[in-house]
Amino acid sequence: MLSKNNVKFIKSLRLKKFRQKYNNFIVEGDKMVRELLEQRPGQAVAIYALEGWLSGVEEARAVPPEKRFCVSPAELKKISNLSTPNQVVAVAVIPEVKMEDVQPAGALSLYLDGIQDPGNFGTILRIADWFGISCVFSSPDCVDACHPKVIQATMGAFLRVSCIEMDITSILKLYPGLPVYGAVMDGEDVFRAGLDGARGLLVIGNEGRGITPEAERLLSHRISIPAAAHSRAESLNAAVAAGILCAVFRDRQGKVQID
Amino acid sequence: MLSKNNVKFIKSLRLKKFRQKYNNFIVEGDKMVRELLEQRPGQAVAIYALEGWLSGVEEARAVPPEKRFCVSPAELKKISNLSTPNQVVAVAVIPEVKMEDVQPAGALSLYLDGIQDPGNFGTILRIADWFGISCVFSSPDCVDACHPKVIQATMGAFLRVSCIEMDITSILKLYPGLPVYGAVMDGEDVFRAGLDGARGLLVIGNEGRGITPEAERLLSHRISIPAAAHSRAESLNAAVAAGILCAVFRDRQGKVQID
Repeated sequence: MLSKNNVKFIKSLRLKKFRQKYNNFIVEGDKMVRELLEQRPGQAVAIYALEGWLSGVEEARAVPPEKRFCVSPAELKKISNLSTPNQVVAVAVIPEVKMEDVQPAGALSLYLDGIQDPGNFGTILRIADWFGISCVFSSPDCVDACHPKVIQATMGAFLRVSCIEMDITSILKLYPGLPVYGAVMDGEDVFRAGLDGARGLLVIGNEGRGITPEAERLLSHRISIPAAAHSRAESLNAAVAAGILCAVFRDRQGKVQID
Repeated sequence: MLSKNNVKFIKSLRLKKFRQKYNNFIVEGDKMVRELLEQRPGQAVAIYALEGWLSGVEEARAVPPEKRFCVSPAELKKISNLSTPNQVVAVAVIPEVKMEDVQPAGALSLYLDGIQDPGNFGTILRIADWFGISCVFSSPDCVDACHPKVIQATMGAFLRVSCIEMDITSILKLYPGLPVYGAVMDGEDVFRAGLDGARGLLVIGNEGRGITPEAERLLSHRISIPAAAHSRAESLNAAVAAGILCAVFRDRQGKVQID
């Protein structure tokens, strides 16, 4: 059922250059493809699924019949990026995000400063989704937001959180005066920092080196997640640190500043 | 230089049954093996390293000469669990943890209730290390604490945090009256719950199903990490949730309870 060209095309989307060339990316697995079809029916351009899935899932009708492909388990294994393929692979259009839709000036947004691990990137989108952060900026040296492992780790958050690749200098040119928060070694305890939390840009540093000197110079608020007094741990995982900061920011939203 | 039996033995340690049979596990990579040799010199029983590493790293002398093996890059690749092997593989003894050393009665400990993903398990040990939590219990259905991917994700925390496999009923028989905290859908906002935070058992649920009904019945404090008002996200990643809860508990340590 699946032509060699089909297989070649789908597998090509594992690479950023082909995702950019075709403006397509891959969404996989029963739950995430259902969410895609429900929440963004126009975004799915083709689905490749086992017979039982295709005939049993009503949402599949959002895709034109000639773009619904019935595949065998062996064919699914060929095109899947998962070690255990899960019934369906969809090809989706990369959404165009307009700055006027995300309005970072009045809300809390994230800036990912060189996040390399796709699992971390996806987990941070999931955190943003949980805490109602609708816009995540990423520096040009981050892993691509449409990498299959990013999409997988989001657990569907990619459908609800907008990702924009833009360096921090350009963001601040568009939104001068936006508060910029970042966790650094000598920062103020985030629990004690008297944050407003409702508005600003929260910088999340790279897994190994933290925040770049270029971004650090632009911080208006230097914060930290205090370790235990005698801890010998060097750092927290980047996504865990993002989760803690977002939780505290959310808790402080709308409260009067202490400072 | 590396015999077939050596290779076979080291590779066998990828499986729990052989780790248990030999009471050994694998630690990999320059940084983590150095930490092992510095912090627990007696725990390393053999090292297999590139010539430059063996001759340049002084800590290697903690291992008897006949247990230091010089390997070629090709041999290292054969025994490594990493996609990019990093200079050295060590075989270490699984430490015996005694309950009297961890003293959970007077401190905050974690209980991992069926954590399956080795990356999550290791990341949670790293979180514990950061926040000064010295003891992590795990239910018998968790991934093994000595799984190579757990060790890798700890970034060295396995050297400083004690892991004990024990079900929650047995823990509470040993420490009756210990406060038991767990994040559940209808729990009280952890930021508002008036925690002491200095003492108790914090239950971290499985990635898919959360906390088991057996453990949920034993909770003395039902807490939650509130999502944004209109969030459509279903959950946070287990390690991220653990990080947020530990951060709040640490912040509340030693403070007067509000309740």
